[in-house]
Amino acid sequence: MTDIEHRIAASFAAQGLMQTLGATLEHVGDGEVRIALPFSRHLSQQQGFIHAGAITSIVDSACGYAALTKAQPTQDVVTAEFKINFLRPAVGERFVAVGMVRKAGQSLSVCTGEVRAWTAGEDAFKVVAIMQATLAFVPGPVPR
Amino acid sequence: MTDIEHRIAASFAAQGLMQTLGATLEHVGDGEVRIALPFSRHLSQQQGFIHAGAITSIVDSACGYAALTKAQPTQDVVTAEFKINFLRPAVGERFVAVGMVRKAGQSLSVCTGEVRAWTAGEDAFKVVAIMQATLAFVPGPVPR
Amino acid sequence: MTDIEHRIAASFAAQGLMQTLGATLEHVGDGEVRIALPFSRHLSQQQGFIHAGAITSIVDSACGYAALTKAQPTQDVVTAEFKINFLRPAVGERFVAVGMVRKAGQSLSVCTGEVRAWTAGEDAFKVVAIMQATLAFVPGPVPR
Amino acid sequence: MTDIEHRIAASFAAQGLMQTLGATLEHVGDGEVRIALPFSRHLSQQQGFIHAGAITSIVDSACGYAALTKAQPTQDVVTAEFKINFLRPAVGERFVAVGMVRKAGQSLSVCTGEVRAWTAGEDAFKVVAIMQATLAFVPGPVPR
Repeated sequence: MTDIEHRIAASFAAQGLMQTLGATLEHVGDGEVRIALPFSRHLSQQQGFIHAGAITSIVDSACGYAALTKAQPTQDVVTAEFKINFLRPAVGERFVAVGMVRKAGQSLSVCTGEVRAWTAGEDAFKVVAIMQATLAFVPGPVPR
Repeated sequence: MTDIEHRIAASFAAQGLMQTLGATLEHVGDGEVRIALPFSRHLSQQQGFIHAGAITSIVDSACGYAALTKAQPTQDVVTAEFKINFLRPAVGERFVAVGMVRKAGQSLSVCTGEVRAWTAGEDAFKVVAIMQATLAFVPGPVPR
Repeated sequence: MTDIEHRIAASFAAQGLMQTLGATLEHVGDGEVRIALPFSRHLSQQQGFIHAGAITSIVDSACGYAALTKAQPTQDVVTAEFKINFLRPAVGERFVAVGMVRKAGQSLSVCTGEVRAWTAGEDAFKVVAIMQATLAFVPGPVPR
Repeated sequence: MTDIEHRIAASFAAQGLMQTLGATLEHVGDGEVRIALPFSRHLSQQQGFIHAGAITSIVDSACGYAALTKAQPTQDVVTAEFKINFLRPAVGERFVAVGMVRKAGQSLSVCTGEVRAWTAGEDAFKVVAIMQATLAFVPGPVPR
């Protein structure tokens, strides 16, 4: 693993919420991070579909880590704000959130994200949500 | 309980994610709903604060249920989109999301929300996040 | 006029777009600014109502100047991003955009805004749009 | 011109604001519309750059017309809401807003947009803003 892959894997492991949801870090690239989440009834809304909040949580983290690949080693990233559109009911067995950096500045980074739903027997994913997010670079822990 | 309080309590109980997070329905009023969430390490981001995704999940649900108080008995509500700003680190022991209807139309409802952080020994809450959301009325289950 | 009123009046006068639209600076308070815009056919969308872009322009400026009331004398403000919901058709003879600071930090400020439509013969305004915006403090011109 | 090109050209010509800004309809494709705007001092903010409101107006219209390419002949489109991030100072001589449909449903359409800045002597554009928008289909005028 590269330094940034190590750093993001360690940070992801420290995110209690990601463990609680059952999310896993799937891919770390330069300016792009993917997080996967299997469907679970424990994550549902009232109709049995996955809750918008769970979908949002993984794509927020994916955008944050995508921005972190552009940070200095002494910086961490926090979410300043985001906006998310839900394009269709989040039906599927497995969801993959993709966060991508669109602009990395000195103090702010702008990312776009999408959440892809995979269903057994279908050969293509469906995009169920798209996000536009602003992340702030903040002084972070000295990396070990 | 009124009909709408009954209906929202039943719907909330069916939201697996709310149980998983440890959230509780605190108040249902006409056009306003409040959901509470105690801090837990299981909901943290990498620095130990509560994850933006958990904060977002409760205020998304609060806005959805606020909109539901304006729905017809044969309608349910789904989130079309929202935007959330995080105003300060979400430090606190207990968080209360408030969802408020700003406009209820035929097919869409616009809500604003905020998340209040309470800390022991402090006599006032701090607003840690504000949301602006669009909810869509959809055909729902026939109420029992 | 106070220093900040002077500064904002001078900045507003330098905004070519505000002159082109016919907007006027109506009020500058601590953390709150109001900008007025009379209806004109020159600002319409295809149905003859005022264009969402004109409505957005005045409330963006109102939020920016509200944030500027919280800036240092050596700082200027630029819009990082915003989100706006249109609550009803923007019917009216006069529109007033109100920008309000919700949080002023070191480098970022979060504002909410609304646009009020006034119609002759009606004794109350209608809120036609609400905004949630993030403004960034940047090094500005040395004030004269 | 195809029927939809005719319809959008006529609607664009009826948008007073587009004429006032000096914007022109550059391209109409299936699910994608482009609108161009030359720089003018009449559209500036206080530092002399083009105002965020002008940038927003053209990309809002581009998204609206992109959605209109997916509407029924008896429907028109109105903006329900949008969010826009400004990625860098909007420096340039000519701006092109691109609106693209991401999802067209029965009553709502979700579009993404971007604004490209062109500067003489540079062989590539810079993306200065990105938008994520929700458009609503509404009953429209019977097309002639």
